[in-house]
Amino acid sequence: MTILRLPSLVDAHVHVREPGYEHKEDFYSGTVAALAGGVVTILDMPNTVPPTDTPARLLAKARLAQAKVVCDVGLFVGATTTELDAYLPVAQAACGLKIYVSDTFGSLRIESLDLLHRFFRSWAECAAAHGGYRSQGIAEGIGPIAVHAEELMLPVCLALANLHGTPLHVVHVSRRSEIELIRKAKEQGYAVTCEATPHHLFLTAEDAARLGPRGDMRPRLVTADDVAALWENMAYIDLIATDHAPHTLQEKQSQEAAPPPGVPGVETLLPLLLTAVHEERLTLEDVVERCAFAPRRIYGIDEPEDSYIEVDVDAEFTVRDEAMLTRVKWTPFAGRRVRGRVERVVLRGNEVFADGQLLAAPGSGRVLFGAADGI
Amino acid sequence: MTILRLPSLVDAHVHVREPGYEHKEDFYSGTVAALAGGVVTILDMPNTVPPTDTPARLLAKARLAQAKVVCDVGLFVGATTTELDAYLPVAQAACGLKIYVSDTFGSLRIESLDLLHRFFRSWAECAAAHGGYRSQGIAEGIGPIAVHAEELMLPVCLALANLHGTPLHVVHVSRRSEIELIRKAKEQGYAVTCEATPHHLFLTAEDAARLGPRGDMRPRLVTADDVAALWENMAYIDLIATDHAPHTLQEKQSQEAAPPPGVPGVETLLPLLLTAVHEERLTLEDVVERCAFAPRRIYGIDEPEDSYIEVDVDAEFTVRDEAMLTRVKWTPFAGRRVRGRVERVVLRGNEVFADGQLLAAPGSGRVLFGAADGI
Repeated sequence: MTILRLPSLVDAHVHVREPGYEHKEDFYSGTVAALAGGVVTILDMPNTVPPTDTPARLLAKARLAQAKVVCDVGLFVGATTTELDAYLPVAQAACGLKIYVSDTFGSLRIESLDLLHRFFRSWAECAAAHGGYRSQGIAEGIGPIAVHAEELMLPVCLALANLHGTPLHVVHVSRRSEIELIRKAKEQGYAVTCEATPHHLFLTAEDAARLGPRGDMRPRLVTADDVAALWENMAYIDLIATDHAPHTLQEKQSQEAAPPPGVPGVETLLPLLLTAVHEERLTLEDVVERCAFAPRRIYGIDEPEDSYIEVDVDAEFTVRDEAMLTRVKWTPFAGRRVRGRVERVVLRGNEVFADGQLLAAPGSGRVLFGAADGI
Repeated sequence: MTILRLPSLVDAHVHVREPGYEHKEDFYSGTVAALAGGVVTILDMPNTVPPTDTPARLLAKARLAQAKVVCDVGLFVGATTTELDAYLPVAQAACGLKIYVSDTFGSLRIESLDLLHRFFRSWAECAAAHGGYRSQGIAEGIGPIAVHAEELMLPVCLALANLHGTPLHVVHVSRRSEIELIRKAKEQGYAVTCEATPHHLFLTAEDAARLGPRGDMRPRLVTADDVAALWENMAYIDLIATDHAPHTLQEKQSQEAAPPPGVPGVETLLPLLLTAVHEERLTLEDVVERCAFAPRRIYGIDEPEDSYIEVDVDAEFTVRDEAMLTRVKWTPFAGRRVRGRVERVVLRGNEVFADGQLLAAPGSGRVLFGAADGI
């Protein structure tokens, strides 16, 4: 038994599902699962029902969150074809703007140049009005634009962000073509960062065939060569986030319509990465940089004082559906042997999770950037 | 009768159709039509059958051209999914690389990021090996990348060109969203140029409804607001070229399959623009800049010595199908009253067209960039 104390983790890509899909997950169950995974800060995506695309909806979501969260949560606003850039008055209360330009769950996909250009332009104008873009230690400013942009949609976003000087964060990069283009853009000085998910790092299209709907998400699992490209270019992957996207097994296994894409992930993030450390595919510093320091830097989130996690890096166990605390109680990694168990989580001096037990009260976490305070 | 002597014109976007579609146009009929329009240099597109995508095919096309042309012609090579960048060894013999990323006539459309990124990267590497990009007065180097890139495909090409330092020429810009993005890119210092066609400047989607297949091309005719955007942003439109894309009227009016998109244009270019000058929508300098100086600068084509055209700018006439010298003998502008008749064309000291009569022998024009010389 070797207990390591690590900085408290951030999962910068989580779908809490509230409001609209509370049977999948809500701000309580989602943040409990986060703590179980050693994560004390999550960033929540806007493709709920209704989507988080107006000041009123951001405030309503923030209040729902504040009543239930057991860890900290930042909320994205989302670009939609109906509300356009109605979110602008509360841009500083969001962790960033999420734009979907590729196939996803929900209805937020943007497909017109006119509209997409407008979102980048107006976010840049908003930043200018708010003193620029947020960084760690500086509360002023607004967050980056985060994009789900696969294949040809990636250079679309690179151009628009570069032309308007908006920091661009590319979520869940999965293909060789994408990471190689991001590498080129970084080399040319573009203000671009990116993330990869554990499922794109540890599973391939072959696993998707075996897993069926349990292995279906967007972007889809890709070839072994694509996965190899992510590992080869790990130096260009700023952070690792899970795209925790719970759906019930019943929904996933439905024979009727197309099952919803997406898989849970926040609880398996750290054991998967610590197993890769054990196998010498990553260093512990790689993991801490990508799951703690980088997301805080990119989204301008200060580390909560007196917060850390303790992990038994020797503990080896088999991932099991039943052990999951997410409301949907399954994981695409079920059956996998992993190493690294979260023993204890301390947030702002309080023990909030220990020995598999939640010790925090609903509402004890914080909604970041003042989103719950109203405008 | 007011005769003006103008610099000899360039039409930087012409589909001669040879080889493969000689019943529509060939290097003789196409260049005769060019001279009738006051154009002494045309740039020919690569979507023939076979496409101009290998050294052997470029040489074969250049020899076909050299035997027939009555004016000068530069040949594009084209990026294809089958021959990849096989054209690279003869890049310096082409006027540029054409890449189709939007819906077009033929089969050259590129839809994968991997492939598209490869074309930009390999063209940039090729330029480095050839001393850079060609400019007027400097024979060394290779030409720009010209793209058919509508809507979201435009920022794709802007990003790839900017990342690899390749000059990008955007052909037939038609929409407000596109010209506004190009304007932004120019303001930010991107090495981008663009062209508009007379049909996108003088016709709208309403005309398309009236014209039926005679008004069908790619990009399609657009809204009055899009057309207004082109005129408002004329300062950002580097050149005007026709996208002369002949199909027979029989093909266009076919009831069976979808009629092929594309319209002829090289003969109506100058009268349409001189009419706009008469209406004070353009100056004569605007026309000469966009139809002579700019295309020579962008593609690095020296002005042929002792060459000019003479135009009667007072002559007013009705455009008629029967008056066209293109093999297909029709025009979408039939019935329109215009001003400005080409009276005389002199190329390298020789009168090659006068009073409606061709005076040049087949093969008297030149194939540019040494393409007909073999490698």
